[in-house]
Amino acid sequence: MKLTILGCYAATPRSITNPTSQVLEINGHMFLIDCGEGTQVQLRKKKIKFAKINHIFISHLHGDHFYGLIGLISTFMLLNRQHDLHVYGPKGIKEVILLQLRLSKSYTGYALYFHELESTESEVVFEDERVVVRTIPLEHRVYTNGYLFNEKPGARKLNIGLIEDLGIDRCYYQKLKNGGDVILDDGTVVRNETVTYNPEPIKSYAFCSDTVYNESVIPIIKDVSVLYHESTFLDSESHLTERTKHSTAKEAALIASKANVGKLILGHYSTRYDNIDNFRKEASTIFHTIELAEDGKEFDL
Amino acid sequence: MKLTILGCYAATPRSITNPTSQVLEINGHMFLIDCGEGTQVQLRKKKIKFAKINHIFISHLHGDHFYGLIGLISTFMLLNRQHDLHVYGPKGIKEVILLQLRLSKSYTGYALYFHELESTESEVVFEDERVVVRTIPLEHRVYTNGYLFNEKPGARKLNIGLIEDLGIDRCYYQKLKNGGDVILDDGTVVRNETVTYNPEPIKSYAFCSDTVYNESVIPIIKDVSVLYHESTFLDSESHLTERTKHSTAKEAALIASKANVGKLILGHYSTRYDNIDNFRKEASTIFHTIELAEDGKEFDL
Repeated sequence: MKLTILGCYAATPRSITNPTSQVLEINGHMFLIDCGEGTQVQLRKKKIKFAKINHIFISHLHGDHFYGLIGLISTFMLLNRQHDLHVYGPKGIKEVILLQLRLSKSYTGYALYFHELESTESEVVFEDERVVVRTIPLEHRVYTNGYLFNEKPGARKLNIGLIEDLGIDRCYYQKLKNGGDVILDDGTVVRNETVTYNPEPIKSYAFCSDTVYNESVIPIIKDVSVLYHESTFLDSESHLTERTKHSTAKEAALIASKANVGKLILGHYSTRYDNIDNFRKEASTIFHTIELAEDGKEFDL
Repeated sequence: MKLTILGCYAATPRSITNPTSQVLEINGHMFLIDCGEGTQVQLRKKKIKFAKINHIFISHLHGDHFYGLIGLISTFMLLNRQHDLHVYGPKGIKEVILLQLRLSKSYTGYALYFHELESTESEVVFEDERVVVRTIPLEHRVYTNGYLFNEKPGARKLNIGLIEDLGIDRCYYQKLKNGGDVILDDGTVVRNETVTYNPEPIKSYAFCSDTVYNESVIPIIKDVSVLYHESTFLDSESHLTERTKHSTAKEAALIASKANVGKLILGHYSTRYDNIDNFRKEASTIFHTIELAEDGKEFDL
């Protein structure tokens, strides 16, 4: 699992910082999460292949999280993309994208699917044999969802030496990978766990931005490997959180602590702060494993 | 008159090039022309004060000419802009901007006026005592206008020494500046041209992008001081101009020559070319005074 931060600052793009966008590589998928203005240029700078992105998850329709989407969709078109593209986001996202394509008489040569969200309950929005993605309802000034990405358990790993010693036929290998036992010709039962190893531990990633401090996310993200939680403000601006529906670094850490996550990544910093190290300092008083998002930074998770 | 190129490349933004946008300073106005994705960051890089931009002229609704507009309008809002903002562009521009503001529950604290264009004839879209702006109907894949910016003649300059020697009262100064004659107490007529100098020559700027080669613009831009004309292609790709409705460098030069303009600036280069010097080479075979637009370049005109 690898996370690449394309942008992690709040509000407006600047010459030195970018609004929210990140790429999550998980179990063979490359998911784009949010798409602020300039995301396509950030993708180019990080040399991420556009063609590998087939699913885009948008948290909410504030500009710093989706104004780059129409440009990316248009660029996919100019690059003669053929693969389907799936966009997940709040109701309204389809109208705004299609209106702009229609006004420019631009029609994608690829199939563009919109999965519009309205529910205030967590729901599965994507699932295949490798990954399942659920929404995390957040509390912000507009309808907003975070996203929870869970790997599915992989196949069990075969102890090939032992299996060959026992003379188990190859036709049983898939059954063993799936966790099944095997009965030999002499009637002996070979218990699965005696000839296989556990699969790699499954990993999970929760993206929670933008949101005010909201304990209702805790059961959804419980025990997640990595949590990205917005921390727009430091403590000195905590009086702004309720009106703006954003969180402080300490509040992000409190959610991480209560949800028992493996690691917390902070981001969505207000551009008023020159030194983001203070976010780590404040959050560290409450939670142990803190990382700071920075534009262009890659996390091997 | 000063022109700052924020971006001058066709199609998609890249790490090293930007789509179309430019700032024209003329007779005290600062006009933004087109607004591709990333324009607000380019404005910041050039340290152009956002508050000085009160009029934005959009040529057409292809993404590389207006996908940065919604972000700029939103940023103006976040910066607590108070001044009115006027946006000129094809019909539909209002719907797409307002839809996005509505979806994000964002309302500008300043008055936002849309001047939607539908006419296929040249028309005056802005006029005050200093400048007049007209559309230049262009021929592209979608409804497109260039814009012609004309300074208005300034006041005549007084030959103060001579005026004082003649004993002309100050109350006549404005009349002299406006071109009027003065009759002295003894009945002598002082002809205006004997005591004033001509005002600064008026300057004009024509922006023509995007367009196929189209001679119908020639009477509109006749004798303009400076013409920016798109040159998406070199001669080697001239077979693409009719289908894409773009021009070659030579075609831009031919328009410049036939319209007798003072200077031609080329831009809107296809990103397929590594060396833009070839645009100058090809255009120079037809027209004398060629400049190449480059992102970030400033022209003192």
